[in-house]
Amino acid sequence: MNELIESRRCFNGEQRRYRHRANTLSCDMQVSVYLPDQAKSQPLPAVYWLSGLTCNDRNFVEKAGAQRIASELGLILIVPDTSPRGEGVADADSDSLGQGAGFYVNATEQPWRAHYQMERYVTDELVQWSADTLPVNDKRAIAGHSMGGHGALTLALKHPHLYTSASAFSPISHPTECPWGQAALSAYLGEDPQLWLQHDACVLLQSKRSHIPMRVDQGLADPFLTEQLNPQALEKAAQVHQAPLAMHYHDGFDHSYFFVASFIETQLRFHHHYLR
Amino acid sequence: MNELIESRRCFNGEQRRYRHRANTLSCDMQVSVYLPDQAKSQPLPAVYWLSGLTCNDRNFVEKAGAQRIASELGLILIVPDTSPRGEGVADADSDSLGQGAGFYVNATEQPWRAHYQMERYVTDELVQWSADTLPVNDKRAIAGHSMGGHGALTLALKHPHLYTSASAFSPISHPTECPWGQAALSAYLGEDPQLWLQHDACVLLQSKRSHIPMRVDQGLADPFLTEQLNPQALEKAAQVHQAPLAMHYHDGFDHSYFFVASFIETQLRFHHHYLR
Repeated sequence: MNELIESRRCFNGEQRRYRHRANTLSCDMQVSVYLPDQAKSQPLPAVYWLSGLTCNDRNFVEKAGAQRIASELGLILIVPDTSPRGEGVADADSDSLGQGAGFYVNATEQPWRAHYQMERYVTDELVQWSADTLPVNDKRAIAGHSMGGHGALTLALKHPHLYTSASAFSPISHPTECPWGQAALSAYLGEDPQLWLQHDACVLLQSKRSHIPMRVDQGLADPFLTEQLNPQALEKAAQVHQAPLAMHYHDGFDHSYFFVASFIETQLRFHHHYLR
Repeated sequence: MNELIESRRCFNGEQRRYRHRANTLSCDMQVSVYLPDQAKSQPLPAVYWLSGLTCNDRNFVEKAGAQRIASELGLILIVPDTSPRGEGVADADSDSLGQGAGFYVNATEQPWRAHYQMERYVTDELVQWSADTLPVNDKRAIAGHSMGGHGALTLALKHPHLYTSASAFSPISHPTECPWGQAALSAYLGEDPQLWLQHDACVLLQSKRSHIPMRVDQGLADPFLTEQLNPQALEKAAQVHQAPLAMHYHDGFDHSYFFVASFIETQLRFHHHYLR
């Protein structure tokens, strides 16, 4: 099953929504796609956007204003949901675990492992789905916000052959050392912290020699800055291991989509430089 | 009571939300305000935005991406709710009547008249509130979407001393002749269609010699185009009565905020030309 369920004109392109059967997740998934008109004459590069806790595929599409720049630059935006969904999919009475909070890992533990395979979904099935469904070329970037910023950085570091560049707004930079990350990783992967290390951008920067260009934007009025996000740990790991990370702090900005909207043009231009 | 309840950095300015006691409406109201940093050094002109059916003060703020341009041009955006709200405020089991659907008129009928005084609220109390609360100068424009487009055009035509220019996306252009308009105007003003005429932009263009510059953007894939919106009637009335209306039709665009987002820059630049 692969169905176009909505298409609306937006700037010089179409804001679409698809529903498809995700075999990796054993459920149906919705994916939002922005398709610039340039795609009518040539295949285009794609930017995958991973959203944060409690979001689905619509928050970024409705609130970031990214279509304007994607239309100008000729970038296809591919925005998956943040977890498997639906009846029969395990859930938790929490904003930071279960549906809406897949953390972009492949769960090994019960009751999650039957559906929560978000790393495989994003890096394998969704890439293949895009090639089958959309006029994409073979250039890809990955970006995200908060939990999705964690996803973008870790997936790019683990799968560098897939992405030319990675960026994040307000990422959960060091999830093995923060409450959101520890709760989710222990639930999805088990209690042994050794099992979490491959899903922490700071740790991945130590273990892999990364050449992928990365950009992070972080608001300094973000209420989660110290307890959950810890961008300084990421900055330090990149410095120690000489990874190309451009870290940008912004006075006064918080964790909301008002921050994302304010700098999405900058991030998309960053990716466009490498995707050309 | 006049309280700043939220302020978030957005582009070069602050996206704020206030709660204040609205005496005209006999209830508390929320108002969203975008305040560009230029307001720190000088008073700025204001664009009032009136939203459509089912909306409150947040839809435009979250979905239109207007802050980017307002910040560049130095325009304060003032976005009221679409009706009185709260317990004790009459409501209807309908998307097009009652809370979320005030139609920017002063109701004379029961059970509406105690609170539904949206014309007085927008043209009188909100203007005074803005002068008391915000660093506005005495230049104002008014714009809106759908029901709010109707509001922007009719309030500008009835109160030309208040506004330098008016614009609308997909306005309910001829409410005395469409189902949404007839249902609302008969409920709020009574069954006699003569009482509705002062709330119909097409009729107002006939009865008043208007010099206020107006711009309308209308998508041609709008599902409400023929039955509810009827922009051709507005275009014709403006031609017959030589009113300065620039009507712009757009292939493929529908009634959503994806349309508003695509052309809000154009409309704000239109207003800025007259507000300078």
